[in-house]
Formats: sequence, C-alpha cells, structure tokens
Amino acid sequence: MKNYKKRDFPVDTVRRFLEPGPIVLISSQYKGESNIMTLGWQTVISFEPSLVTCFIWDQNYSYELIRKSKECVINLPEVHMLDAVVAIGNSTGAEIDKFEKLDLTQAKASIVKAPMIKECYANFECKLYDSKLIKNYSLFVFEVVKAHVATSPRYPKTVHYTGDGVFMLSGEHVSRKKQFRPECL
Amino acid sequence: MKNYKKRDFPVDTVRRFLEPGPIVLISSQYKGESNIMTLGWQTVISFEPSLVTCFIWDQNYSYELIRKSKECVINLPEVHMLDAVVAIGNSTGAEIDKFEKLDLTQAKASIVKAPMIKECYANFECKLYDSKLIKNYSLFVFEVVKAHVATSPRYPKTVHYTGDGVFMLSGEHVSRKKQFRPECL
Repeated sequence: MKNYKKRDFPVDTVRRFLEPGPIVLISSQYKGESNIMTLGWQTVISFEPSLVTCFIWDQNYSYELIRKSKECVINLPEVHMLDAVVAIGNSTGAEIDKFEKLDLTQAKASIVKAPMIKECYANFECKLYDSKLIKNYSLFVFEVVKAHVATSPRYPKTVHYTGDGVFMLSGEHVSRKKQFRPECL
Repeated sequence: MKNYKKRDFPVDTVRRFLEPGPIVLISSQYKGESNIMTLGWQTVISFEPSLVTCFIWDQNYSYELIRKSKECVINLPEVHMLDAVVAIGNSTGAEIDKFEKLDLTQAKASIVKAPMIKECYANFECKLYDSKLIKNYSLFVFEVVKAHVATSPRYPKTVHYTGDGVFMLSGEHVSRKKQFRPECL
C-alpha cells in the first residue's frame, strides 16, 4: 500500500478527481459502527457549494449509517487498491468489519465523524446537503466540506466500472486549455 | 472521422459505456431546431428501466429544447473527436448551428425525433422519464429506449473531463470477474 503525503485541496475544484467518473469508496459511521461501500453512480452537480449527488441503494448496509449520521467520506482509490475495491463491493458490513478484514486504516477526519481511508489517494469529507431526494430516488446530495489530496501524482490512476466485473483504468491526460473560452474552463 | 458499423445493443447494459463517466454529447431537437451540448455531469441510476440522470443547466441553449421535446440522444464520442467536443462545449446553439459548423452528420433515430451524431461510437435514444427534478435541481431523468453501438472496438477510447481544459483518456481494461459474487456482477 502506498503511503501518501496529503494536503488540503480547495473544495470547489474537487471536480478534477470526481468528474472523470471513478469508482469511489464511501466510508461512514453511526453510533460507533463504521462501514465502507463502493460507488460508481455519482456525479458532481455544483462547484460552489461543492456538491456531489450519489445514488445509494436502500439495500446497502451503509444506507442507514449515512442517512442517520448525515455525513460520509468519499475516498478515492488508485488501481493498486483494485482487489480491495472488489472485495468491498462483494461483501456486506452486516457480516464483516471491512476495515479489519481488508487491513485498511481509519484516519480521523477534520470535520465529520466518519473515518477516512488512509490508503486512498484522496479523502473528501462530506455533509448531507439535501435529503429530499433520498426517499423517492435514493439520491444523496452531499457537500464536500474538506478535501485531503495526495501531493503526488498530479492525477491519480483511477478505476472505472463498466459492469460484468471489468474495470477501465484511467489513461493519459491531455490539455486543450488553449481552445477554451476563459468562462468555459 | 471514423465510419462505424453499429448494431442494436441491449439498453439494460449501456452502463458499460456510461458508468465509467465519459464526456457525452447530447443532441436535441424541438420544432425543427436542433443543437448539441457537451455533458460530463451524468450518472446511471437504474438498469431496468435503463435510467440516466443528467444535470443540464438552465443557461444551456439545449435546456429548453430538451425540456419541451421531452427527449434527446446521448452520443458517445471517442478521442478522435476531442477537438469537436471542445468546440461544442465552447460555443452556443444560440449563435451557431453546431452540426453545420463542425461538419457533423445527423443520422435519423429510430424512436425519438432528436438527431443522432453519426461520427460518435454510440448513440442512446432517450425519453424523459421523470421531469420532477428539473425545476429545483436541473436534473433530467432519462430512459434509454434504444441503443446503437459500434461493433468494434469492444471498448471505446473515451474522454473524461477534469476541469481546467484537461481531459483524461480512457486506458486499458482489466477483468476481476472471478472475484465477483454472481449477484454482484
């Protein structure tokens, strides 16, 4: 496992990491019980405030932990954690302690009570911003209130799910900045 | 531009292409007027029905075309179209005809009136499934009602936006299918 050095990152620019669509790990805690789930169904919907909408199924063990605690951490794993990602997605917190079973380290967050996963490239502390879409749509609108991001590499090597057990790994980065109008960046 | 051979694709498995989080091109038409917009803020939320939630800002010229026609096509570009993607995102249909200006070909869809972009790897015909989140959240819940997908390559080389004019290109694909429980695939 990598031992990242992390720094505070402006919350209004976490799109750099979330907008490309990677699999993330959601960690949560409620009344002393913690859990981790995998998530690929999320999208950025605002920069300021920094909002991310996550589809969390009510059959997920984390659903109630997050709904009741009104917070979570969105953790961003790199490809070296792929087997842990698969194991997390294929087990339930109702049966095992995923932190212990997968030898993952809980790091204390600054603002929320949910633990951060130390082995991840980035950790985004989130507060539930809007709960009105949970009941009918399973959509949780979170505000990223604090971001901890590895100082290197500049872009993480993320994993993106395509279904059927197959993951796409992030490739090279290319800039087209010169072709953008300033207001469109 | 590539000249793809396309086939019908099961709509309940379009996650293969949308869940990894690529930039897509939304084409729309209302009362004879058509437009194209870029979108990176979308997420799958259901397989059956095949639902995709898209954040479309009310300042986008396409917003009213889609809201009024209640349909669109989600087109998936590969990296060879990157400059067209940037040009589409940095111009407005209020001023130019993007199909004409960018020399893109309108292909007739099977079910919806909105045109498909022939030069894209895949075209997903969509009907507005739920309009209740448009007003307060700018979220359009679409049902993919018909999917046209290139017969090759098996996985497209997609572009994923990170902000600041920088795109991540999709990399290699790896399978972990043997580590999945059948019900989790």
